[in-house]
Amino acid sequence: MAPAIPSVQWAQVSPKLGGPVEYKQIPVPKPGPDEILVNIKYSGVCHTDLHAMKGDWPLPVKMPLVGGHEGAGIVVSRGTLVDTVALGDHVGVKWLNGSCLACDFCETGDEPLCAKAILSGYTVDGTFQQYCVAKAAHVSPIPKNVSLDEIAPVLCAGITVYKGLKESGAKPGQVVAIVGAAGGLGSLAMQYASAMGLRVIAIDGGDEKREWCKQLGAEHYVDFTASKDLVADVKAVSPDGLGPHAVLLVAVSELPFQQAAGYVRSRGTVVAIGLPANAYLRAPVFDTVVRMISIKGSYVGSRHDGKEAIDFFSRGLIKVPIKVVPLAELGNVFTLMEEGKIAGRYVVKMPE
Amino acid sequence: MAPAIPSVQWAQVSPKLGGPVEYKQIPVPKPGPDEILVNIKYSGVCHTDLHAMKGDWPLPVKMPLVGGHEGAGIVVSRGTLVDTVALGDHVGVKWLNGSCLACDFCETGDEPLCAKAILSGYTVDGTFQQYCVAKAAHVSPIPKNVSLDEIAPVLCAGITVYKGLKESGAKPGQVVAIVGAAGGLGSLAMQYASAMGLRVIAIDGGDEKREWCKQLGAEHYVDFTASKDLVADVKAVSPDGLGPHAVLLVAVSELPFQQAAGYVRSRGTVVAIGLPANAYLRAPVFDTVVRMISIKGSYVGSRHDGKEAIDFFSRGLIKVPIKVVPLAELGNVFTLMEEGKIAGRYVVKMPE
Amino acid sequence: MAPAIPSVQWAQVSPKLGGPVEYKQIPVPKPGPDEILVNIKYSGVCHTDLHAMKGDWPLPVKMPLVGGHEGAGIVVSRGTLVDTVALGDHVGVKWLNGSCLACDFCETGDEPLCAKAILSGYTVDGTFQQYCVAKAAHVSPIPKNVSLDEIAPVLCAGITVYKGLKESGAKPGQVVAIVGAAGGLGSLAMQYASAMGLRVIAIDGGDEKREWCKQLGAEHYVDFTASKDLVADVKAVSPDGLGPHAVLLVAVSELPFQQAAGYVRSRGTVVAIGLPANAYLRAPVFDTVVRMISIKGSYVGSRHDGKEAIDFFSRGLIKVPIKVVPLAELGNVFTLMEEGKIAGRYVVKMPE
Amino acid sequence: MAPAIPSVQWAQVSPKLGGPVEYKQIPVPKPGPDEILVNIKYSGVCHTDLHAMKGDWPLPVKMPLVGGHEGAGIVVSRGTLVDTVALGDHVGVKWLNGSCLACDFCETGDEPLCAKAILSGYTVDGTFQQYCVAKAAHVSPIPKNVSLDEIAPVLCAGITVYKGLKESGAKPGQVVAIVGAAGGLGSLAMQYASAMGLRVIAIDGGDEKREWCKQLGAEHYVDFTASKDLVADVKAVSPDGLGPHAVLLVAVSELPFQQAAGYVRSRGTVVAIGLPANAYLRAPVFDTVVRMISIKGSYVGSRHDGKEAIDFFSRGLIKVPIKVVPLAELGNVFTLMEEGKIAGRYVVKMPE
Repeated sequence: MAPAIPSVQWAQVSPKLGGPVEYKQIPVPKPGPDEILVNIKYSGVCHTDLHAMKGDWPLPVKMPLVGGHEGAGIVVSRGTLVDTVALGDHVGVKWLNGSCLACDFCETGDEPLCAKAILSGYTVDGTFQQYCVAKAAHVSPIPKNVSLDEIAPVLCAGITVYKGLKESGAKPGQVVAIVGAAGGLGSLAMQYASAMGLRVIAIDGGDEKREWCKQLGAEHYVDFTASKDLVADVKAVSPDGLGPHAVLLVAVSELPFQQAAGYVRSRGTVVAIGLPANAYLRAPVFDTVVRMISIKGSYVGSRHDGKEAIDFFSRGLIKVPIKVVPLAELGNVFTLMEEGKIAGRYVVKMPE
Repeated sequence: MAPAIPSVQWAQVSPKLGGPVEYKQIPVPKPGPDEILVNIKYSGVCHTDLHAMKGDWPLPVKMPLVGGHEGAGIVVSRGTLVDTVALGDHVGVKWLNGSCLACDFCETGDEPLCAKAILSGYTVDGTFQQYCVAKAAHVSPIPKNVSLDEIAPVLCAGITVYKGLKESGAKPGQVVAIVGAAGGLGSLAMQYASAMGLRVIAIDGGDEKREWCKQLGAEHYVDFTASKDLVADVKAVSPDGLGPHAVLLVAVSELPFQQAAGYVRSRGTVVAIGLPANAYLRAPVFDTVVRMISIKGSYVGSRHDGKEAIDFFSRGLIKVPIKVVPLAELGNVFTLMEEGKIAGRYVVKMPE
Repeated sequence: MAPAIPSVQWAQVSPKLGGPVEYKQIPVPKPGPDEILVNIKYSGVCHTDLHAMKGDWPLPVKMPLVGGHEGAGIVVSRGTLVDTVALGDHVGVKWLNGSCLACDFCETGDEPLCAKAILSGYTVDGTFQQYCVAKAAHVSPIPKNVSLDEIAPVLCAGITVYKGLKESGAKPGQVVAIVGAAGGLGSLAMQYASAMGLRVIAIDGGDEKREWCKQLGAEHYVDFTASKDLVADVKAVSPDGLGPHAVLLVAVSELPFQQAAGYVRSRGTVVAIGLPANAYLRAPVFDTVVRMISIKGSYVGSRHDGKEAIDFFSRGLIKVPIKVVPLAELGNVFTLMEEGKIAGRYVVKMPE
Repeated sequence: MAPAIPSVQWAQVSPKLGGPVEYKQIPVPKPGPDEILVNIKYSGVCHTDLHAMKGDWPLPVKMPLVGGHEGAGIVVSRGTLVDTVALGDHVGVKWLNGSCLACDFCETGDEPLCAKAILSGYTVDGTFQQYCVAKAAHVSPIPKNVSLDEIAPVLCAGITVYKGLKESGAKPGQVVAIVGAAGGLGSLAMQYASAMGLRVIAIDGGDEKREWCKQLGAEHYVDFTASKDLVADVKAVSPDGLGPHAVLLVAVSELPFQQAAGYVRSRGTVVAIGLPANAYLRAPVFDTVVRMISIKGSYVGSRHDGKEAIDFFSRGLIKVPIKVVPLAELGNVFTLMEEGKIAGRYVVKMPE
């Protein structure tokens, strides 16, 4: 029997660009023919949510806005056309809420590049509410043995690093260097890399991160604050001294990028996945050509990447350290985030 | 019956860094156990030959040096281990004269990246002589129906652009933009692209090159000297307005490179094949990431790429406009080259 | 201004398994929210249509049925959710009328493998009527410069052989043998192969087909009725005597299949695209293993394959010999088909 | 300082087709310019060695013959051209002793398909002797931390199953079924698959093998002797019920092959790696086509595959249960093999 759906719900709403969020009751939305209504249980909080509220990016943002794009919950209602998810299914609502499903990109599994993509918590209301509408074809199925709080950050951060690793072209047994390894994205990346049979060189700053990286599967740790020649030091710890087959830059800026182009193996690939404002990739032509290096940008994962990333998690191969707080406290989380005081990943819990 | 091999021969020799070349008689070399002796009939003249003589590049160059790395000729002698070419075979001697055949790169068809690669007319004597030694495993077989004068420039320029097109990942029916299309490399690239089933957008400067590009198979020509918004103009002539699937930059410099990153289709690839000194690739991180663009360097082709490039030529699909002069005139060709007065491709003919 | 849509229309209807078809007036259907109504102008007639009417296949068929799955027409109405096609657009209705768009296969561009696929003229009414309903996400866009009569057979036969060539993995410059080259599918396959930069060895029976195959781009023709050792003869006409890189079997039966496994190059691929009842592929293990041969089945193309196949056609690279008759004569076409009297491809024209 | 090389040595020699082997002293061979002399320490014993001695295969075998092709030892001498291995290096001598290094296959990393390949212990003397000649470009480097006895069987059995897994196309997180999982090849295959991030369904006969397969990483075990519907049972244990993405058949025969074609996922790949005499692959055309299944043969690995397979072993990810006996006892090992009494892998130790 389907659960009763209330007509109003609690949500965190940004009334206008710049914020702050207001915790209040709003109507429960209704799904269209190709949509579902998801009773969100938990939602991760991502820097992108802060950027959206602030209007930091050139891309226009809906206002007033319910943010959030890492929502895990239960299907409680579905449109007339929907037959690919059932009431009671556990699903994730991701950054990519929907896409046209018929353009070149959507047809070939690259729907994040769809020109008509709609974005949760950005161009449509997201997951900082108890009941969220999502396109049925785009939600991520979540196995029922999976905790809905822990899976929340996987729906954005996990999928993104997993996608980046796939894009790197590194194959089982090959070596990937992860720059910014000890951070939130990097910590997930090390675990996914290990689960994919890759060998990891962790690069980060400070000796206290060494142990953390080793615990998450890194074979080697290179401390860029202590290195006098990072290019030489990274090559030195690669198995044959020729450098890692791929480099994953989880926080792209110019110097680390140029270093990566220096130590990546000939024929190797440097994958950039961060989105710093106004940053540029820069590499010498001569070296890039004679060493046949590839430099690639990797955005969020596709629906299929999402399923795969969740599958790795559901098999217990990925641990996500989270801190759960009530939805009502989202404003405080944003404050901590602005102050740079967040180490792990915050997840907000919806009221019962 | 094997031809008689003389003990001395005519050659063009650079006695020291800076040149000039001297036309004189020198001993005919002898091949080692894994080498052959090739009676060169024709050799193309490439800018790299001038750079080698001048010592323009950081890579150490043999001196005194017989330059040249686009030589076509006939096998007249072979070492005791050689059984993959026969006396009388027509072969090409390329830039890559030899490699270790046992490193990671050699084992996987990427021998141009071998750390022990030896280079014709650079680290060993090359093809500006009547008799040239080459590693048997590296010469390019040339079918006997192919003219040895016309094939000469294919052995470097042709293989290089063909390799670049393969590296672009563009598939038959997809669109590749070629920047510098009307030049020597570009003209070959347009023909190879067409023969590979690709659709070509030619980009070059000046209206007088339009017709030339159309003749060589370009569907569209964009004149960068006349364009007010090159990114918009290239996209506009791509079939669906989303830009070409790949871009081949045959003469990389910073502005054209940045433009290419702007008009290449999302998920597309920009391939750089030129080797300008001190130039840099530069691209905005945000756009590269959210559009998932790849930027790749492509160096010279492998042995297998070479066979394939020659096969396209031997089927009459590639025309190479050449000007043939005697070997004795190489110095004049270098002078014209330095003065920027060479339009097509010079080929030197060895004395009978 | 949208055209007036009548309430009744002419159609060819199979009232029950076994046929025959009845030409009569039936109501014009209405599209659902994710569907469009297409005013069909022309529809190709395929053997599959005959199989559907007869109920030859194990897969259950809708009855009564309007058959047809190669329909070309104009969009005259669309559901509320549809924004990827516009009224007035020219579109093709293919065998795959719709799919779930959210399973593993749909997510990765393999929607023909979707377990919920619906099939035009088989599980839903098809294109032997003036107004046909189709899922908006699945119709093939047709450029307005393309003749709707000639494109009709491309929508099934053309896409299928194009897909088979893609699946073969053969790359520009490589050689593909096409078995049954002079037939309807084979004739299209030779043209697509040439347009993709592939070299073609045509295999068929009888000397009179030689010239036809040469006209459509084959480099060599091997007459299996005249050959005493087909494996040797096919290898002999491949450029280096090692056999073609791929084989496309457009009409699979056991002997031609086993021969193909014999003459395909080591590391090569044999692609089967026909659907003969009760036939088996059979190949010796030893030879398949030590020569590392791949054997693949290829079904109909995806939506994206369809766009690409149409693009080759729209550029004038593919000629389709058709015979156009009024829709009213479909029964006669089926009779000729049953009698094996059809050489080219019949296309039925809808009444004005 | 280089060790002294004796002029005579102990070897096991087959004097004529049919055997038996004779344990006796023979001269130590001398390497040619491109060869090395390896002081073999241990050699695995493979069924192929028995086939060679018996002359079971159509391929002509050298007689008298020193068999063996899984030899691990130390480089003690090298030809004048050799600079890719050094005296004192640990290396493995594999089935593929040498190849032309210049044909299409050798150029592209497929040297096992070279028409001029020479085979250790088959067309040239192999590793059942203290000093074995090998082509320098083909030996497998062995890290000095690796035990030479345990690595021996990896040089043939390990590389072969690793290659088969690569050929399957299965990617990290995907599922591979291994048929004959508990046997010698299968046991290695399960470990390699796990190390590559693949999920394993083990298929074998009898309940007592279940635990062994689970220990080596299998998620599921299907007992074909207990199953009433193997196709259904294998699908049932695949994560989504659609079947494994790939199937590795380590002992191909007709029934298991046909079953594999039934339970492999649509778009999946069945890889055959065994070499049973006179066996055939057989699959229904209809199902192969509409499910787009690939069937592939996989032979021994390339040099690069070999390096990778050894690397997995050297990191402790692969365990090989071996039984070591003196070289003098090889005849007894062959007797046990003929009687079908060998469970694990025998390795012969050379006299000091």
